[in-house]
Amino acid sequence: MSTPADTTGGRRGPYRKTVRRRQEILDAALEVFAVVGYRGGSLRAVADRVGMSEAGLLHHFGSKDRLLVETLRRRDEVTEADLDFSAPGPEVLRQLVEVAARNVRAQGAIELFVVLSAEATDPDHPAAAFFRDRCERLLDRLTAVYDDLGDRGWLPEGADPASLALGTVATWDGLQVQWLHLGRAFDLPDALRAGIEGRLLRPLPGPD
Amino acid sequence: MSTPADTTGGRRGPYRKTVRRRQEILDAALEVFAVVGYRGGSLRAVADRVGMSEAGLLHHFGSKDRLLVETLRRRDEVTEADLDFSAPGPEVLRQLVEVAARNVRAQGAIELFVVLSAEATDPDHPAAAFFRDRCERLLDRLTAVYDDLGDRGWLPEGADPASLALGTVATWDGLQVQWLHLGRAFDLPDALRAGIEGRLLRPLPGPD
Repeated sequence: MSTPADTTGGRRGPYRKTVRRRQEILDAALEVFAVVGYRGGSLRAVADRVGMSEAGLLHHFGSKDRLLVETLRRRDEVTEADLDFSAPGPEVLRQLVEVAARNVRAQGAIELFVVLSAEATDPDHPAAAFFRDRCERLLDRLTAVYDDLGDRGWLPEGADPASLALGTVATWDGLQVQWLHLGRAFDLPDALRAGIEGRLLRPLPGPD
Repeated sequence: MSTPADTTGGRRGPYRKTVRRRQEILDAALEVFAVVGYRGGSLRAVADRVGMSEAGLLHHFGSKDRLLVETLRRRDEVTEADLDFSAPGPEVLRQLVEVAARNVRAQGAIELFVVLSAEATDPDHPAAAFFRDRCERLLDRLTAVYDDLGDRGWLPEGADPASLALGTVATWDGLQVQWLHLGRAFDLPDALRAGIEGRLLRPLPGPD
């Protein structure tokens, strides 16, 4: 899993400094979106937070779209640092529901994810490769998780791990869109937990 | 369920003519998007197909966004004419998978749906009310369908019809996004069928 240390490891000083600066900007963007929402959060607010001009901000990324993609990549990095995909299957799924709960508390990043993800269904969009790779990686990992659940006797006979992985990612993505359309009228993490547990022979472990 | 006849019923001639003209435009838009995709399909191509100027086209709807929303509303009308929500639960779910298969053959409308649906998570977007109402209506109907499935003994003990409805809509929506990201690398109707059947005690009836 990619961590900040991997990205800078072995590089010389100025490069490392640039990487750190980029991470500061992305973390500031995540904070701004978390507090005021993606649509309320302007680049200006992000720039102010790190003491730069908007132009300086864009200089680091080339375009607003690229800054936004990198913001989501950074969110994944932070999330994945807390996720242990090598844990037993039931524990990984429990952690995923925890991630969904954390995301709900920073709703602006969900808005950003939903909008950018839809725009990136255009193969020419600058975020297209990010979403394709992210989806493939998540499906691979979740397929391994459901394989493990099968070995532990948690799956009904004939259940296909790859199909369960696809269904889990789809449920999560779809719930986010519905949750925004319906004005957050249901508990998203609970709905994800229900969607996952409905395919298992036993309930997941409870929250931490 | 709303049908073309409901919309024009009882109105006088010129109004009825306008309604018919709007439907012609929307059907032309659906055809253009089906054949060349949403991003490849220009308003110009739609206008050409109905023998109008682009300005004339927009005159009927006020803006491109409104034309696009009405195109999706028209697709729902056409779809719902083939769907019988009062049929036995297993049959309704089978019909839903058929609709997904039909949509896949007109992929441009899926692209349009995914993009507009994400943009409409902004409560100020002109399509926000359409997607909220559509989602609420679909959830109500599917909850009734799963209620019926429960009565027929198709659901595991303790399964909640409203939660199953939410999961079904989420799975469908999410699969569409993944399907576009992954370059149509899996069979969407099969994946939807698997997602639905995984929650039932028996397999759905086969295709027609």
